[in-house]
Amino acid sequence: MIGTYNKMRLPVSFYVLYMLSVFLGFLCVMFVCLWSGIWRGGFAWNGSFLEFNWHPVLMLTSLVVLYGNAIVLYRVPLTWSRWWCKLTHAGLLFVAMVFAILGLCAVFDFHRTYNIPHLYSLHSWTGISTVALFTLQWFVGLGAFLFPWTPVAFKALVKPIHISMGMAIFILGLISSLSGINEKLLLTLNGNNGSNTEPYTALPAEALFANSLGILVAIFGLVVLKILFNQKWKNPEFEHESNRPLMADAR
Amino acid sequence: MIGTYNKMRLPVSFYVLYMLSVFLGFLCVMFVCLWSGIWRGGFAWNGSFLEFNWHPVLMLTSLVVLYGNAIVLYRVPLTWSRWWCKLTHAGLLFVAMVFAILGLCAVFDFHRTYNIPHLYSLHSWTGISTVALFTLQWFVGLGAFLFPWTPVAFKALVKPIHISMGMAIFILGLISSLSGINEKLLLTLNGNNGSNTEPYTALPAEALFANSLGILVAIFGLVVLKILFNQKWKNPEFEHESNRPLMADAR
Repeated sequence: MIGTYNKMRLPVSFYVLYMLSVFLGFLCVMFVCLWSGIWRGGFAWNGSFLEFNWHPVLMLTSLVVLYGNAIVLYRVPLTWSRWWCKLTHAGLLFVAMVFAILGLCAVFDFHRTYNIPHLYSLHSWTGISTVALFTLQWFVGLGAFLFPWTPVAFKALVKPIHISMGMAIFILGLISSLSGINEKLLLTLNGNNGSNTEPYTALPAEALFANSLGILVAIFGLVVLKILFNQKWKNPEFEHESNRPLMADAR
Repeated sequence: MIGTYNKMRLPVSFYVLYMLSVFLGFLCVMFVCLWSGIWRGGFAWNGSFLEFNWHPVLMLTSLVVLYGNAIVLYRVPLTWSRWWCKLTHAGLLFVAMVFAILGLCAVFDFHRTYNIPHLYSLHSWTGISTVALFTLQWFVGLGAFLFPWTPVAFKALVKPIHISMGMAIFILGLISSLSGINEKLLLTLNGNNGSNTEPYTALPAEALFANSLGILVAIFGLVVLKILFNQKWKNPEFEHESNRPLMADAR
């Protein structure tokens, strides 16, 4: 079976969408860094507003961009072995998980400094659920698909749940990101904070820029989901769980 | 081909998810009506806050609940003809489109009364894009799939785009709904409006209720998408566009 998909000719539309997803991913990370860096004053790790600025950067990079790339990986025709694909998928998601946890630390630290209660908004509810489900999914995935002693029957049982849950977490990540950008702008550009920022309603440059970031995130998410939903682009190598030992086809 | 799927035995998991989606849909509509009705003072059509209250009710009922039911319809094993399924799909979405446009009128009227600028927030950007794409999709769908003189080749060309775009609009609807609930709570329960509402940060009963509504909407959306993504539950009757005249199999 190995190599079937890699020799398969994928249509131009796949490559166009894939390159678009890579390009949009970079653009999202660039935009969120510029937003925090230019309009929100940059970064620090001291419990201040500057520590909060890590929150959008880390959450968006992890739950949207790295996560999206990790799930699309199984559609890209690679010459790597099944083992290396799995390891790269798990590795990218591990980095994403660490970033997401650091992103949560940033906002919790900031709340403690300014005596802001934690987890009151709908954004925080969806966000914390996303990270909790993601962490659970990562550990179950590690146990089910990377440990050599896991029975094939168990892998086959977990696999459809892993795939559905993976997409659900990605969609929750998109919802959390967009509601988070909206929340940050409503709370910062509210005309009540005594700062020299124009109100959100006047749509100053910062609001235009951050709203555009939100639209870029939505388009990135939809492009990734479009690639995933196309059944013809599924890699047949990953259709069935192997009963080969863990590194049998590692090169 | 007609009748194949209707005689097909779908697993219990399909019926569990389908019933869950119907139940959650009702719950979402009930929750949003109670939120506007009890905590936000009820309904009117006079440009006031009471007119705004129609906005969440109409948008959620249309873009999420009716829309979700209309797209899941093609998975439900029905004894109806292909023609009736298409007509019900288009009919449900027509009602949804009218509700969505009325929901937009409610918020624009309210903005005019209070001199609030239109379309400044990220929520409004995603929301207006969702309704615009939805309206375009409905008219293209009408032309492509319900007009008897449309060539089969054109139907076959439009179909995959119609399906992908349909899912994209539904996901955009979910994002718009959750960011909208979050925005409404941030703007209303902000402790600055001189009203007797407790601030959002204190998580009063209204905030708990409306946040729970947001979570219900997210779960409803994920259940609908889970039903749609399962390739085994696809109705083979709708796999290929027919070259039969429009009402050939209407009963």
